[in-house]
Amino acid sequence: MLEKTENLQKTAAYGTHSADKPLEPLTIERRQPGPRDVQIDIDYCGVCHTDIHFVRNEWGGTAYPIVPGHEIIGRVTAVGDEVTGFEPGQRVGVGCLVDSCRTCPDCKEGLEQYCQNGFTLTYNSPDPHTGKMTYGGYSSQVVVDQDFVLRVSEKLDAAAAAPLLCAGITTYSPLNFWNIGPGQKVGVVGLGGLGHMAVKIAHAMGAEVVLFTTSPGKTEDAKRLGASEVVVSKNDDEMQQHAGSLDFILNTVAAPHNLDAYLSLLKRDGTMCLVGVPGEPHPAPDITNLVFGRRKLAGSLIGGLKETQEMLDFCAEHGITSDVEVINIEDINDAYERMLKSDVKYRFVIDIDGSLKQ
Amino acid sequence: MLEKTENLQKTAAYGTHSADKPLEPLTIERRQPGPRDVQIDIDYCGVCHTDIHFVRNEWGGTAYPIVPGHEIIGRVTAVGDEVTGFEPGQRVGVGCLVDSCRTCPDCKEGLEQYCQNGFTLTYNSPDPHTGKMTYGGYSSQVVVDQDFVLRVSEKLDAAAAAPLLCAGITTYSPLNFWNIGPGQKVGVVGLGGLGHMAVKIAHAMGAEVVLFTTSPGKTEDAKRLGASEVVVSKNDDEMQQHAGSLDFILNTVAAPHNLDAYLSLLKRDGTMCLVGVPGEPHPAPDITNLVFGRRKLAGSLIGGLKETQEMLDFCAEHGITSDVEVINIEDINDAYERMLKSDVKYRFVIDIDGSLKQ
Repeated sequence: MLEKTENLQKTAAYGTHSADKPLEPLTIERRQPGPRDVQIDIDYCGVCHTDIHFVRNEWGGTAYPIVPGHEIIGRVTAVGDEVTGFEPGQRVGVGCLVDSCRTCPDCKEGLEQYCQNGFTLTYNSPDPHTGKMTYGGYSSQVVVDQDFVLRVSEKLDAAAAAPLLCAGITTYSPLNFWNIGPGQKVGVVGLGGLGHMAVKIAHAMGAEVVLFTTSPGKTEDAKRLGASEVVVSKNDDEMQQHAGSLDFILNTVAAPHNLDAYLSLLKRDGTMCLVGVPGEPHPAPDITNLVFGRRKLAGSLIGGLKETQEMLDFCAEHGITSDVEVINIEDINDAYERMLKSDVKYRFVIDIDGSLKQ
Repeated sequence: MLEKTENLQKTAAYGTHSADKPLEPLTIERRQPGPRDVQIDIDYCGVCHTDIHFVRNEWGGTAYPIVPGHEIIGRVTAVGDEVTGFEPGQRVGVGCLVDSCRTCPDCKEGLEQYCQNGFTLTYNSPDPHTGKMTYGGYSSQVVVDQDFVLRVSEKLDAAAAAPLLCAGITTYSPLNFWNIGPGQKVGVVGLGGLGHMAVKIAHAMGAEVVLFTTSPGKTEDAKRLGASEVVVSKNDDEMQQHAGSLDFILNTVAAPHNLDAYLSLLKRDGTMCLVGVPGEPHPAPDITNLVFGRRKLAGSLIGGLKETQEMLDFCAEHGITSDVEVINIEDINDAYERMLKSDVKYRFVIDIDGSLKQ
């Protein structure tokens, strides 16, 4: 179903033609909205560490030019004839996915993130509509199938809500899947973009949250975000005080680190779920930490569309957004450098409306 | 509650005084049965790979002399005044545990194998009754607290039932915990003492069983035991035919091996449970295999007393025992050497009654 080239809309964007070049202004082409499409004027786009991996081709497979961005908040400007539930002016969001096969068992269960035939990522995926690659949210507008558009409450600050579309759902989904709630003690490892969302969400779910960090300076902030206790993970004595006591650990740290130090803190039948994928493997875990205690090491990937909507509604109900630093698009390359030094509390969000509009 | 020395019973046994010496006849001392104790005349004792690890101090912590053996089948010869449910002449079994704290939450749930205050192993554990170390089933008789004695059906062959007490429960417990049953496709990795029990039990639970082995020669045997398919794990093509298709994998191989080759065969939300603890770590798993598919890597340790009784009753109902090679006690050192070459189908069992009785 390739659109004709003359039907494409020129769109202002920021991206790069090469792994070793900074992001710069680009003009991309978007399809005209089809019958099932929603056209969205982008207001804000969060900046995810994944954006850097793709831009710099650190995972391989990047097609250039690339326009990253998958934490998109904007307003509907047009809808196709068959679209229901969205209308112009409405605030909406787009996350990591813009399509999937829709026919495999995982898609049918609303778990498009595990689509067996390959989902379509918001950027750097072959686009079935145009035959080119998808382009992300560092751009003035985007056209997305209605099934992959989310409703975002007007109660939430738009800029601060943008990171919910990736950092929010990536942490909400495992906390929800493992039924976190009152009476449970939950560990969160790492206080970055993902970790700070995990602390807020687990706390709002009613759990007692213990934040594990390598940085003693983060204690006050973690407590403000909802942690009842903060453990400096390099301090063995502090770690040992929690041995065998945690129901669940959400580990948001992608850098290779010692998993055993955390596995041994789980109760019997506890699970540590990893949501970061390290470039180099973590040191091999000691299997006795799994066998003695019937513990589990698990992983989880973003979330499906149904659950993402549920997460957005949960966040609106509980007044949860990300702690963000809003930047102009021309500052994106500096922002990347600061992210690599963990110098952001806790997510950069690009003011697309204020700095990129044509 | 130390017994006086004069009350101890001299008991024929086989063991060793040193890690580098063969097993030889020893005389040990057992307590007289107390009010809650059951005295058992041992008929058969299975030979577990753990016995070799302890005898040779391969895990450290072995106290000498050591008398191994934790797959014990025998008959009750005496019971204490407060014992209920056991009477002389009855066939009983003793597995890996002879006591636990009984007060921690795990013990109270009947999961003594995860006792938070430390269980008492059938051998090489400090014995609260004698102040010495416990001695295992390579001996003519044993005295055990009634709560740690199992009922074994007369329907089962006594020698072939002995390995149920360790190999049986170690595989039954995870299959039971993860609710294996009809409609599920279960992988079993390795066809040794544990693996051949896992195939029989998973098959009896109604699952479709795929056996993974490095030995092409084991195909016929695995099918006889209940596998519907046998995959030679070194054959990548054969492995790939099962990608993303297994609900659960019970991995019985303790030797370090590539876990990713199996994790990638799990369905979304599938679990691979390890019941072997490697001497050296497995190669570090690729976390993407967990994240993409929300898969779990887990461990499991033997089973509690309640579940062990349930397993014995299940095996009696389904006519399940171990495939065994019965040996005399004086052949134990040769048997160890053959086990190290995987030259046994699939478990050695010592005919204690026929070769050790005083």
